[in-house]
Amino acid sequence: MAVHVTVDVVIFAVRERALHVLLVRRGRPPFEGKWAIPGGFVEPDETIEAAAARELQEETGVADVYLEQLYTFGDPGRDPRGRVVTVAYFALLPAASPAVAGSDAREAAWHPMGALPPLAFDHDRILAYSLERLRNKLEYTTVGFQLLPGKFTLTELQRVYEAVLGRKLEKRNFRRKMEVLRILQPLREQRREGLPRPARLYRFSAQRFEKLKDKGILFPF
Amino acid sequence: MAVHVTVDVVIFAVRERALHVLLVRRGRPPFEGKWAIPGGFVEPDETIEAAAARELQEETGVADVYLEQLYTFGDPGRDPRGRVVTVAYFALLPAASPAVAGSDAREAAWHPMGALPPLAFDHDRILAYSLERLRNKLEYTTVGFQLLPGKFTLTELQRVYEAVLGRKLEKRNFRRKMEVLRILQPLREQRREGLPRPARLYRFSAQRFEKLKDKGILFPF
Repeated sequence: MAVHVTVDVVIFAVRERALHVLLVRRGRPPFEGKWAIPGGFVEPDETIEAAAARELQEETGVADVYLEQLYTFGDPGRDPRGRVVTVAYFALLPAASPAVAGSDAREAAWHPMGALPPLAFDHDRILAYSLERLRNKLEYTTVGFQLLPGKFTLTELQRVYEAVLGRKLEKRNFRRKMEVLRILQPLREQRREGLPRPARLYRFSAQRFEKLKDKGILFPF
Repeated sequence: MAVHVTVDVVIFAVRERALHVLLVRRGRPPFEGKWAIPGGFVEPDETIEAAAARELQEETGVADVYLEQLYTFGDPGRDPRGRVVTVAYFALLPAASPAVAGSDAREAAWHPMGALPPLAFDHDRILAYSLERLRNKLEYTTVGFQLLPGKFTLTELQRVYEAVLGRKLEKRNFRRKMEVLRILQPLREQRREGLPRPARLYRFSAQRFEKLKDKGILFPF
């Protein structure tokens, strides 16, 4: 059976203490004017991965991010144009960079995952699956650190975990667990701007994480 | 771009203390006579998941297994017939059941992962990726127990871990780690046949595993 193959690229970032996703407003039918995950058709001579990177840049201006293949969706009827199989990718950004609408999209903007507009195609299902996978990955990988800049305060770290998990964490408990994990390297620097008192900056230590994995410890939040 | 979409179903089982994969010998071009992962084209009105289950049963007689979507491979040139995107699934069987060649395959047989024949298409790459994912999953899930019958001895359990990881594990160390995990429920029954002395049977306790996950413990082998 001849089908068309597309890519959809789910980009997450944390801003204003909430998990956001980058969406584009469709500039042409079907679902013209509706918000959608950035993506498009795979070209004859490009790999699926290359298509994902190209579409993301064309539609949103986001480039040079590590895209991980997530899942392939291809139920009959998911696209009114015919049988379209879409390969979904996802990536995490350390901050919600300004979004720029590209050639195929009228508009690109960050939307909080907790208040999504009506979406084109089965993109609500793709986003629900992406969020589930992100939450699972938070438990056994260091994926959370990809949502932070290189240096961060413990409060910023906790905000990222809370934003992804969608619930408040108890501060003392969170810090004790992070201390047990020993994957943070305290820096001499402090952050002062906009804070009632200076807060120490940390960075993630990949070396300590590898030791931790050898011991068999997850991230239990 | 119009392409064709196929499914490939990687089925693993442990037999004779080695990890095996179920392969079929292709009955028609391209790669006629070569061994391949069971699979085939997705029909116009079926979901990709349904196609995977159908092709597996048609080509090997294996039915009623839980298929997990693994990865989608679609590089240009991976199939001499044109652009073919394949969605790979994988499943684990508790024992290497007899394989029966179906309509589209000349022959179906279990092959040890350590001594694979030359394979059709990019199926060597798909198998390498599947093995990597299986090994990773062994670390943070209870996937290993899917390769065992409901009741098993500690020696059988260790053999499965060794078969997947491709290396010997130290017996005392393995048993101590399993004890710490407390995910095994000892049964009153013992296994006597073919053993120098009777060995206690165990079963996997899903309830204990959930508690373990809450505490944040991986499977550190």
